[in-house]
Amino acid sequence: MPELHLLSPAGFRAAGVYAGIKTKHQPDVGLLLCDRPATAAAVFTTNKVFAAPVKVGRAHVKAGKLRGVVVNAGNANACTGKQGERDALRMCEIAASVAKCKKKEILPSSTGIIGHLLPMPKLERGIVEAGQYLGDSLEHANLFAAAILTTDLKRKAAATSFKIGKKTVTLAGVCKGSGMIGPRMSLAGPHATMLAYLTTDAAIAAPVLRKLLEASSDNSFNAVTVDDHTSTNDTACILASGASGAKVSSPKDVKTFATALDEVCRSLAYQIAADGEGATKVVAVTVRNAKTEAAAKAMARAIANSPLVKCATHGNDPNWGRIVSAAGLAGVPFDPDKCQLTLQGTIVFRAGRPITFDPNAVSESMKTPEVKVDLDCRAGKGTATIWTCDLSKDYVTINADYHT
Amino acid sequence: MPELHLLSPAGFRAAGVYAGIKTKHQPDVGLLLCDRPATAAAVFTTNKVFAAPVKVGRAHVKAGKLRGVVVNAGNANACTGKQGERDALRMCEIAASVAKCKKKEILPSSTGIIGHLLPMPKLERGIVEAGQYLGDSLEHANLFAAAILTTDLKRKAAATSFKIGKKTVTLAGVCKGSGMIGPRMSLAGPHATMLAYLTTDAAIAAPVLRKLLEASSDNSFNAVTVDDHTSTNDTACILASGASGAKVSSPKDVKTFATALDEVCRSLAYQIAADGEGATKVVAVTVRNAKTEAAAKAMARAIANSPLVKCATHGNDPNWGRIVSAAGLAGVPFDPDKCQLTLQGTIVFRAGRPITFDPNAVSESMKTPEVKVDLDCRAGKGTATIWTCDLSKDYVTINADYHT
Repeated sequence: MPELHLLSPAGFRAAGVYAGIKTKHQPDVGLLLCDRPATAAAVFTTNKVFAAPVKVGRAHVKAGKLRGVVVNAGNANACTGKQGERDALRMCEIAASVAKCKKKEILPSSTGIIGHLLPMPKLERGIVEAGQYLGDSLEHANLFAAAILTTDLKRKAAATSFKIGKKTVTLAGVCKGSGMIGPRMSLAGPHATMLAYLTTDAAIAAPVLRKLLEASSDNSFNAVTVDDHTSTNDTACILASGASGAKVSSPKDVKTFATALDEVCRSLAYQIAADGEGATKVVAVTVRNAKTEAAAKAMARAIANSPLVKCATHGNDPNWGRIVSAAGLAGVPFDPDKCQLTLQGTIVFRAGRPITFDPNAVSESMKTPEVKVDLDCRAGKGTATIWTCDLSKDYVTINADYHT
Repeated sequence: MPELHLLSPAGFRAAGVYAGIKTKHQPDVGLLLCDRPATAAAVFTTNKVFAAPVKVGRAHVKAGKLRGVVVNAGNANACTGKQGERDALRMCEIAASVAKCKKKEILPSSTGIIGHLLPMPKLERGIVEAGQYLGDSLEHANLFAAAILTTDLKRKAAATSFKIGKKTVTLAGVCKGSGMIGPRMSLAGPHATMLAYLTTDAAIAAPVLRKLLEASSDNSFNAVTVDDHTSTNDTACILASGASGAKVSSPKDVKTFATALDEVCRSLAYQIAADGEGATKVVAVTVRNAKTEAAAKAMARAIANSPLVKCATHGNDPNWGRIVSAAGLAGVPFDPDKCQLTLQGTIVFRAGRPITFDPNAVSESMKTPEVKVDLDCRAGKGTATIWTCDLSKDYVTINADYHT
């Protein structure tokens, strides 16, 4: 079976070209189009400061129908006032002339530095050029995936297929995200620059698609943090072409689709944590049996965001006191006398007291691509996992000199 | 006039000795005693995970009378269960035998690594030894101030004197704090390890002292963040000997005292930011004219805690988009179209749009011991300042290898 990718679902074409927005000669303009009106849903950042393309995208996706997505990297078109909005609309207009649709059927995205007007002449030429290179091969998918990257070191993609009745449905996605990562996206609001675009050839109603995307995002994109700095531009958008002829409407089929969507979103989100700025490993923080799921999430997030925990993980230091104390500062009920903390499978703290363990052995066990932190609160049934990465000197290098 | 210090207020003696708890041969046990029952107040961390000495200290200060403080550095006595509590009480017992008072008249503190039982034989000998070296000279004050340090590079002290009627009152303090700094102390609760001890020879009632300490802490210690990791051990304690004979009770005198207390606490807090782990400069974030003071605080804290903002400051990078977007993620009302952002005196963003400025000149202006970030929201009358420091590679070095 050939490798599944973003353009495996029937009905989609894409391109990625270099338009001169990034300083490095790498694709920076992407176009993803559907050959028919696709059912669409999107979630956006909840930051009070949201970029012009987020404002435009929110309006355009409202009707639940889109023909495509136009995106640039290297400039976020955020904090750019009315001119920024005009520029985001102009991006849609040019993409629409390629797709032969209305501009409100295009969702625009931008990622990169905040506070600079888009270089429109370059960008306009780039979108037109992308229109000339559209295709549905793996190479086209890869170029589109590359065109949305900023400080990312790797392209991020995931895909799956499943049966709805006798028909095969494919669901795929690409995303970007490395810094300014602390997404808290919702249908209403704004959050970090992560961008994700998903395609499927299932036929599914927009209200259902919206609900499923929001639920999947909550346990995938919104469960990743690199620096907890919710961006002005975060966007996850899904397009459903319906070209497979498989109708997703019965509760059973909706559940099958939801499971596949969860799988793809979680794979993409994990790739963001693994490619976090300066990351050498993923830290998977699970808080289980908390009073509520919200409490588990708050504690897992507090642990994942602690620079002390992130540095300790980087240095393979089983300094578990930082983990327990981070859980205690989350502002939710937590009784350390009841809980148990496991670090890479070794119990290090239980019932309010340290457990004797071999620190060298645990330190050795932390030299791995994924460090598992597991806090059992023994207080209820709320469980959550948050993915982050370690904090290295490279993170400082990357971010101390991004702009000048 | 001789230099004022912790032991300038009449009635206090202190000592700092090396008991072998720290790995480096530096003072690690401190004793601060008052020659009579002092009026006392203290605020403690609001972390749900609080150390044994915090539990004991909270109980001991309740009556509003203390004879002194016993403190060790190098071991936090946190996450140590019932044995930890017994050890904290034992510290008080030995200090009380030196002071010839009850153990409940002593407040214990510990700072250092979490999750290890105190080395009691060493510590007990240290406290007894400290009792033999008590004195009220500047050197004694300096030894006590040194005995509470962990990753701090500098001792921290501040003092002032003022008139109450015709009598001169002295108020002084020392503190420690460099990492695990994000204090949110209150009379009720727990937050980062910062420790602060204040002395005064004013005569003042305990309920008044409590109220004043809480108010001063809110705008000083609780306005500092290095890593926003509220510690298990944060404590600020003030002892009033009354030895000056000056009674602070009229509203006017209380106000005079409060102003002096604010001054000393703010000086101490600032010194914590300046000595933050790996810090090369202070970042003073002021948010003014927000809808409420709470909103101003939330935004200032979000800006101060963003690793992206902290790294940019370290690299003298006027990347103001990170600042504005951090304000937007604080979860409080904020309209970027109304606000104005000033970086080291240069306006960089106004009314939702970038302002043209010379990035090299602003970058040059950031090469200074204190970078001023000023966000004017033009939405109300709430104003707050939060102090933090930049994020350097040294921060990672210090924290990736603290334990092992």
